[in-house]
Amino acid sequence: MGNCCERAGNFFGPQNNTYIRVSLPAVCFVWQIAMVILFGVFIRYDEESDEKGWHEFKKSHNITSNIENDFYFRYPSFQDVHVMIFVGFGFLMTFLKRYSFGGVGFNFLIAAFGLQWALLMQGWFHSLDPVTGKITIGIESLINADFCCAGSLIAYGALLGKVSPVQLMIVTLFGVTLFAVEEYIILDLLHCRDAGGSMVIHTFGGYYGLAISWVLYRPNLNLSKRLNGSVYHSDLFAMIGSLFLWMFWPSFNSAITNHGAGQHRTVINTYLSLAACVLTTFAISSMGQKKGKLDMVHIQNASLAAGVAMGTSAEFMITPYGSIIVGFCCGIISTFGYLYVTPFLEKRLKLQDTCGIHNLHAVPGMLGGFVGAVVAAAATEEVYGKEGLVETFGLSGKFENRSMSTQGAYQAAGTCVAIAFGLVGGVCVGFILRFPLWGDPADDFCFDDEAYWELPEDEETIPPVLEYNNHMINKHQDTHESQFSLEES
Amino acid sequence: MGNCCERAGNFFGPQNNTYIRVSLPAVCFVWQIAMVILFGVFIRYDEESDEKGWHEFKKSHNITSNIENDFYFRYPSFQDVHVMIFVGFGFLMTFLKRYSFGGVGFNFLIAAFGLQWALLMQGWFHSLDPVTGKITIGIESLINADFCCAGSLIAYGALLGKVSPVQLMIVTLFGVTLFAVEEYIILDLLHCRDAGGSMVIHTFGGYYGLAISWVLYRPNLNLSKRLNGSVYHSDLFAMIGSLFLWMFWPSFNSAITNHGAGQHRTVINTYLSLAACVLTTFAISSMGQKKGKLDMVHIQNASLAAGVAMGTSAEFMITPYGSIIVGFCCGIISTFGYLYVTPFLEKRLKLQDTCGIHNLHAVPGMLGGFVGAVVAAAATEEVYGKEGLVETFGLSGKFENRSMSTQGAYQAAGTCVAIAFGLVGGVCVGFILRFPLWGDPADDFCFDDEAYWELPEDEETIPPVLEYNNHMINKHQDTHESQFSLEES
Amino acid sequence: MGNCCERAGNFFGPQNNTYIRVSLPAVCFVWQIAMVILFGVFIRYDEESDEKGWHEFKKSHNITSNIENDFYFRYPSFQDVHVMIFVGFGFLMTFLKRYSFGGVGFNFLIAAFGLQWALLMQGWFHSLDPVTGKITIGIESLINADFCCAGSLIAYGALLGKVSPVQLMIVTLFGVTLFAVEEYIILDLLHCRDAGGSMVIHTFGGYYGLAISWVLYRPNLNLSKRLNGSVYHSDLFAMIGSLFLWMFWPSFNSAITNHGAGQHRTVINTYLSLAACVLTTFAISSMGQKKGKLDMVHIQNASLAAGVAMGTSAEFMITPYGSIIVGFCCGIISTFGYLYVTPFLEKRLKLQDTCGIHNLHAVPGMLGGFVGAVVAAAATEEVYGKEGLVETFGLSGKFENRSMSTQGAYQAAGTCVAIAFGLVGGVCVGFILRFPLWGDPADDFCFDDEAYWELPEDEETIPPVLEYNNHMINKHQDTHESQFSLEES
Repeated sequence: MGNCCERAGNFFGPQNNTYIRVSLPAVCFVWQIAMVILFGVFIRYDEESDEKGWHEFKKSHNITSNIENDFYFRYPSFQDVHVMIFVGFGFLMTFLKRYSFGGVGFNFLIAAFGLQWALLMQGWFHSLDPVTGKITIGIESLINADFCCAGSLIAYGALLGKVSPVQLMIVTLFGVTLFAVEEYIILDLLHCRDAGGSMVIHTFGGYYGLAISWVLYRPNLNLSKRLNGSVYHSDLFAMIGSLFLWMFWPSFNSAITNHGAGQHRTVINTYLSLAACVLTTFAISSMGQKKGKLDMVHIQNASLAAGVAMGTSAEFMITPYGSIIVGFCCGIISTFGYLYVTPFLEKRLKLQDTCGIHNLHAVPGMLGGFVGAVVAAAATEEVYGKEGLVETFGLSGKFENRSMSTQGAYQAAGTCVAIAFGLVGGVCVGFILRFPLWGDPADDFCFDDEAYWELPEDEETIPPVLEYNNHMINKHQDTHESQFSLEES
Repeated sequence: MGNCCERAGNFFGPQNNTYIRVSLPAVCFVWQIAMVILFGVFIRYDEESDEKGWHEFKKSHNITSNIENDFYFRYPSFQDVHVMIFVGFGFLMTFLKRYSFGGVGFNFLIAAFGLQWALLMQGWFHSLDPVTGKITIGIESLINADFCCAGSLIAYGALLGKVSPVQLMIVTLFGVTLFAVEEYIILDLLHCRDAGGSMVIHTFGGYYGLAISWVLYRPNLNLSKRLNGSVYHSDLFAMIGSLFLWMFWPSFNSAITNHGAGQHRTVINTYLSLAACVLTTFAISSMGQKKGKLDMVHIQNASLAAGVAMGTSAEFMITPYGSIIVGFCCGIISTFGYLYVTPFLEKRLKLQDTCGIHNLHAVPGMLGGFVGAVVAAAATEEVYGKEGLVETFGLSGKFENRSMSTQGAYQAAGTCVAIAFGLVGGVCVGFILRFPLWGDPADDFCFDDEAYWELPEDEETIPPVLEYNNHMINKHQDTHESQFSLEES
Repeated sequence: MGNCCERAGNFFGPQNNTYIRVSLPAVCFVWQIAMVILFGVFIRYDEESDEKGWHEFKKSHNITSNIENDFYFRYPSFQDVHVMIFVGFGFLMTFLKRYSFGGVGFNFLIAAFGLQWALLMQGWFHSLDPVTGKITIGIESLINADFCCAGSLIAYGALLGKVSPVQLMIVTLFGVTLFAVEEYIILDLLHCRDAGGSMVIHTFGGYYGLAISWVLYRPNLNLSKRLNGSVYHSDLFAMIGSLFLWMFWPSFNSAITNHGAGQHRTVINTYLSLAACVLTTFAISSMGQKKGKLDMVHIQNASLAAGVAMGTSAEFMITPYGSIIVGFCCGIISTFGYLYVTPFLEKRLKLQDTCGIHNLHAVPGMLGGFVGAVVAAAATEEVYGKEGLVETFGLSGKFENRSMSTQGAYQAAGTCVAIAFGLVGGVCVGFILRFPLWGDPADDFCFDDEAYWELPEDEETIPPVLEYNNHMINKHQDTHESQFSLEES
């Protein structure tokens, strides 16, 4: 049986265009060398991570204890976010029966590249020192870099199984770049608040991926239909990713909110919203099937929609029951999306969305942006206190006199900016990806790790000693059997 | 082969009573809407998570730094506990070969409901403000809510594979309610200390589950015997759950202990006890088999018993070697339980305990309660210091004059209360679950995800391109083969 | 089919010598009882975890807040390190198709023993109070104990599948002992800095394992060749371990560095280095195969090499781009190692290294030691500040006048000490393991969980009800089929 693990597909055309032995190493080396040079020119430790700087900072700020270092406020959340990016997103994308290596492996590759590029891009836009010309980084920069990657990883969800790793590197290069620009517009120019990134991460990432996928539409994708689905164990691997995303989402949304009550409240709101979302997801999933059976795809994905939708408003005083209401609605909307909208988009709009990011990121993200706008507009000094209102919405300096309803309007405008950047950027990147030199698989070779990975032998070929020997003997005697095993393996 | 993944069982009776398309969504919606209303009426942010409140709190308590917010003392432990509840308990219950979806999925559902209900129930009993009529919540409330769920998740361990999700929602509704009451009696009225919940969580949860299972005894469960076991990969998934429980148990026990030395010492004690437990578990597991081979069931479960048993005493000055002795004994007792007691219970007491919670939670929990009583009774001012003794055992206010031996006696009494609540509550809930309308599976349809989940096609049906096509051609020609593949798939 | 899961191998010789029903329990019990006694004699809580001690410490140090307890500086990192030891190392070793139980299970056993023994050994060498004769432990001791285990777990990587659990307990007993001695020489006598253990953990552990494996060379290991490889799902399990190691390595390297900027900077450096390493690993992995396909072995292992190599220098002011350069080189070196050096070592040096620890730990660790030496030698007061230089390199007391170039020389010497201890210690332990009474498997029975574990039935034997019954009927009628199923299972 061992001799048939070399897949038949290899003897035909498809594997020709998946040849990445030149392009992938070239891209990796060129970009990584560029990173070395750019980091050498631009990136330095900030005053809380620099040895000399921290001693001076403590003196100048009259701080006696090291525990006041921002590190201790942010590090636990940072590690949780890091787990979400690599295990959360990575394993969530292992659900396909024969694309688990690609799901978790390419996620690993592009996140590792993306976070370096993000440190540079976000640094140039947000923290470039005009005097020294340097970007200083600390723990908050690392969190932001992880966030910035998330946008491109979300886009990967729509493209899963249909693109080459080289294409994914390009998606990430442009994704991170676009992210930094739209983030600058939304957070700095429009001065929106978006700690958990409903707008800047999820709305942008979702529409970015959908637009790319729309440009890359494959009319004959059903040739790979046999591999576009899960098996029992691949669904369990995906559940690992899903649960780590679900559990750590409170950390995701609170990672860069204000110290103290800000982080505290964000965690409570996200936690409650996610819990409520699970119940409505189960309910709709069961109602959506004739026999009332639950669908693992919904449980894995729709139960996360509340985290996405709370990205903007979780740090506001949305109240505990407000959070639950948002979660309640998101579970319903997202599961409906998986049941009816994704098939509709594929059939009518020619939009192939492997992971259903439309229902998990694009729509809940957009919703979260508008919920944030409403909650911001409704904020009063009575609820937040004078100090609290200024701190929560950053209404100091030139934004001192902005009214809360104006803030709400800007929040809504920010959401529209994120959608626009996603759609326009995605269409442009999509056309770049259509050049025929990036090594993407043919239509009948999608969703198959065979294209880019040395695969181990199949599971069935673990023979016990005795049978193994018998088998070896029989193989040369019994033609019937060896033919048969070829067909069934 | 694709055509035989629709299991034969579907064409007979069993699936009729597993029809949950009405009942599950109904329960989810009704209870979640109730949550929205009750949260709206009762739940508010506490002074450390409320924007205005925290600014006032800092002023009134003369706090200068945000790092003094309880959030920073508790958040890392909270996230670890959260992982234990959803990945730990969830994946530990994936060990059955065809009930992994149900194990991790229903755990997800009931924990998500349970924690909302727990915030309300625990709030009413512990932190209802008599003036405003509101419950204020903060990070410690979230930890307690997770703890409260754990009781019901433990009970699920005894019922795994034999009940419907609707029944589990009922188990959780009553489980959380009973938990809040017994917790109030044990911690508030008897004024016991039980930070890691040997009594209130594990003893209660264990006996609660056992009592329910006893009432729901299925005489013909051996009709499902073929599915009541693990396969190689399902044991590995279960090992993920087991290890996350084992690793994070120090966080579980220390999550709500006193700031400073209290949390610090609890971690050390739990860590040591768990390490010792592993060695004796391996030893007894090997001794218990004729050929000296190890059993994965013991490794996955019995190695955790020390965490359970240290739930009460880990915050006391039990000494490092005291912790190791507790771990040493627990590994032996729990593994013996799996080897001899569980089969005995099933045969003689008609008690079907799928996960063996008797050995992992009920007995070690009870043991932990009594160990805690002894250690409390032995506490002296010499060891704890005057301040320390008062702080560790909360001996202020009306408990100021309680002697340590009295405290020990109350601790022992608390354990008995937990057992009583578990047994009586479990029997009552068991009878409620016997109503024939909850959609539980027939005796020959237990331990089977087919009952409640849309399952993906079988693993073997991933054909390579060429063989797939051949197969499609042959399918219509060769009757021998298609018949054969039906039988073997 | 169920009848052939009792492996054929059992009916022949091999299983005789894997009989561990006496030796494993004996070793576990004797050593665990020894731990109880030694902990009783020596181990006490330190002043930050002792109830009375902490109250006195706060008074004497004029500390007002519990947040100053070292616990809050170290605990999040500790839990991450704990995850790396048990899930990281454990699951990384599940990659073999039929040795996953052994990989994760024996890792669990020896780490649980090793950490207890490490608390004693490290305590005797580093923190034995000469007056009271006691060792006091706190959270930093637990981290160090986990670190100390890591040395032996690395060695296990070279031996995976070829030794018995009893042998592994011996490897750990001596491994931890040797570790404590070399650590004392390197950190205390030579006064090197090695917070993340490039030298003391990885270099030592790597060469220790390689030397043992070299002594235990099995000329006929190719008899077990059919099991010395992965299957699709076992590679995914290994990826869980790999990713948790990768994500938490910043915590590993920063866990015991200086409070404040020290921990902060270590995290940044490790994070960047690991990201760069991923890109070069993918590049070389693709270049190393004729068709440009990626190899999961490289992705799982070589991408971690940067974490190993940053163990010494991450806490220094190596600069962000310095970190990226180290990561860049490590990805290349380590992947080359997997492609060419491991096969060479096996063929020419008779060194069988199952997990390739030569490329993941030994060489990157050594490299990290020398990088650390260079960075230390280049340290200046201008960059670190006067205070910072003293603090970072601990240049107080009798080391007050040591110049930075001298420090660099000592760092380099420390690396050589680690290599020497690993090689000499490993050879000695290897000869001890060659006594024929430890229950190791025969050459044709390696990499097989069958030797030490009760295995569940095979996956294919999950028949649906109908087919199950048909199968049972056919089994007795149709000889053709039953013969066939025997051969193919």
